Amino acid sequence: MKIAIIGISGQMGKWFASYFIQNNHEIKGYDINLKGLSELSENLNFEASDSLQKAIDNVDLILVAVSLEESSSTLLKLVKLVKAGVTIIDVSSIKSSVFITLKQLSEKNLNVVALHPLFGPGLPFNSVKKFALIPVSDSVQELKTINLLFPENETTLVSLEDHDKSMAYLLSLPYFANLSFASAMIDQDINSMKNLSGTTFAVQLTLAESIMHNPDLITSLTLVNPYSIEVLDKFKNKLDLLIKSAKTNKESLGTEISLIKDGLAQDLDFDQAYKKFYKMYMSLDQD
Amino acid sequence: MKIAIIGISGQMGKWFASYFIQNNHEIKGYDINLKGLSELSENLNFEASDSLQKAIDNVDLILVAVSLEESSSTLLKLVKLVKAGVTIIDVSSIKSSVFITLKQLSEKNLNVVALHPLFGPGLPFNSVKKFALIPVSDSVQELKTINLLFPENETTLVSLEDHDKSMAYLLSLPYFANLSFASAMIDQDINSMKNLSGTTFAVQLTLAESIMHNPDLITSLTLVNPYSIEVLDKFKNKLDLLIKSAKTNKESLGTEISLIKDGLAQDLDFDQAYKKFYKMYMSLDQD
Repeated sequence: MKIAIIGISGQMGKWFASYFIQNNHEIKGYDINLKGLSELSENLNFEASDSLQKAIDNVDLILVAVSLEESSSTLLKLVKLVKAGVTIIDVSSIKSSVFITLKQLSEKNLNVVALHPLFGPGLPFNSVKKFALIPVSDSVQELKTINLLFPENETTLVSLEDHDKSMAYLLSLPYFANLSFASAMIDQDINSMKNLSGTTFAVQLTLAESIMHNPDLITSLTLVNPYSIEVLDKFKNKLDLLIKSAKTNKESLGTEISLIKDGLAQDLDFDQAYKKFYKMYMSLDQD
Repeated sequence: MKIAIIGISGQMGKWFASYFIQNNHEIKGYDINLKGLSELSENLNFEASDSLQKAIDNVDLILVAVSLEESSSTLLKLVKLVKAGVTIIDVSSIKSSVFITLKQLSEKNLNVVALHPLFGPGLPFNSVKKFALIPVSDSVQELKTINLLFPENETTLVSLEDHDKSMAYLLSLPYFANLSFASAMIDQDINSMKNLSGTTFAVQLTLAESIMHNPDLITSLTLVNPYSIEVLDKFKNKLDLLIKSAKTNKESLGTEISLIKDGLAQDLDFDQAYKKFYKMYMSLDQD
């Protein structure tokens, strides 16, 4: 298949390019950041294009892997440029801002797939690829496209609203829990404190530091998602309530904690959590 | 050595009893919860006492491993009962509430050790034992006692104020970060959401669930520590600030995040965090 990858210089763009090349597809690549594109094309072995128009000329499939901020405008450009019969796959992590344009594209007699890869660019090519699929017009056809390109996939169908709302809980919420945790303690001498630290702190600190690997992603995923602020305000109110109950008395805090425990117990993996946590902690000591 | 363990039915009490028995000490044990004590004494092979007075009669060393709420009153009783020449080790995790009584005991010509074991009851006996030592009167003598009983130890000396303040950051802060995270999302269908979840959420959820292994400890460690509320209020204010900047614009949130990143970078392990985080995540999938 002849595939154009838009945003090929990004981490996910590179991953898809390499994956497709390994699976014997022919790749054309474009990126708004033209600098370094020709070098990348030599390394990965794809045809570099210096415009969006040239990149999508004569291809069967267009995969859009641009940054969250660019995805809406990139897709709007494609509405004008693209010819009937082509398949378009958008892989942005938040879909509210692109969904109207994806609908518009699908009405031009195009096969449009709103896909969210639930993995990062470190995934080995032969691993099972977990995706969320937000149906645009014909979910059967859209699933067929995924199965053809990624034979080993686990794909969850989810509505636009449920998807983006879930992402507010799954991404923005843990990001802000870690940011505020870190923010409260960076004025302390972390290296000295670590001499006194137990297991929970060690794991939480590693998590907080690891999200700093890509700070721009935190900002984008939060600000592009229309449900994030609502979930973050809820988080703040729950923290308020917990601190108030800690200021009241032992019973009050105890009641709050036991409600939380009951809520978490709905998770089918709840009983394994302590064991799994200890395994995580032990893995920190290995080199 | 003849050692009395007060609070022997608790998790840490049991750990110390088994450790000392393995190292050929003679153990007497007492617990306010008398039920089950005789059965435990048969299993572990120590002499059960049905009163504090009887337990400490004729011993060289008294290790106090009662709950945080009981430790102050237990030590006050010991002030009246204990005879000169005995060593007393208190192993409670927060020291503010017991320190005056420990000082009082030391003035009765007793060797008093304010020790905080920085490990849980799952630690293998032959592992290095990490301790915090809060000097009471003669730190050289107190360290000697630790080296004698636990030849393989790593002990950090720290003042009362620094110790308890650090515990507010190391214990109460991550506990409340996890409690509020969990509280904000337990009204969602966790099992469905997990189909869509990425790496950060998976690790954070496991952590939040694992602290529910011992909810009473969260309450005690927070309410007994005079510095906890101050640190939790700070945490709330930092979260407020982050949410406000998210509501302002991208630059504002970006600036906050980059200040946090700079602060975390003081940690000598910061550069390894992403790699370590991935190892933790991968360990979740193993059985």
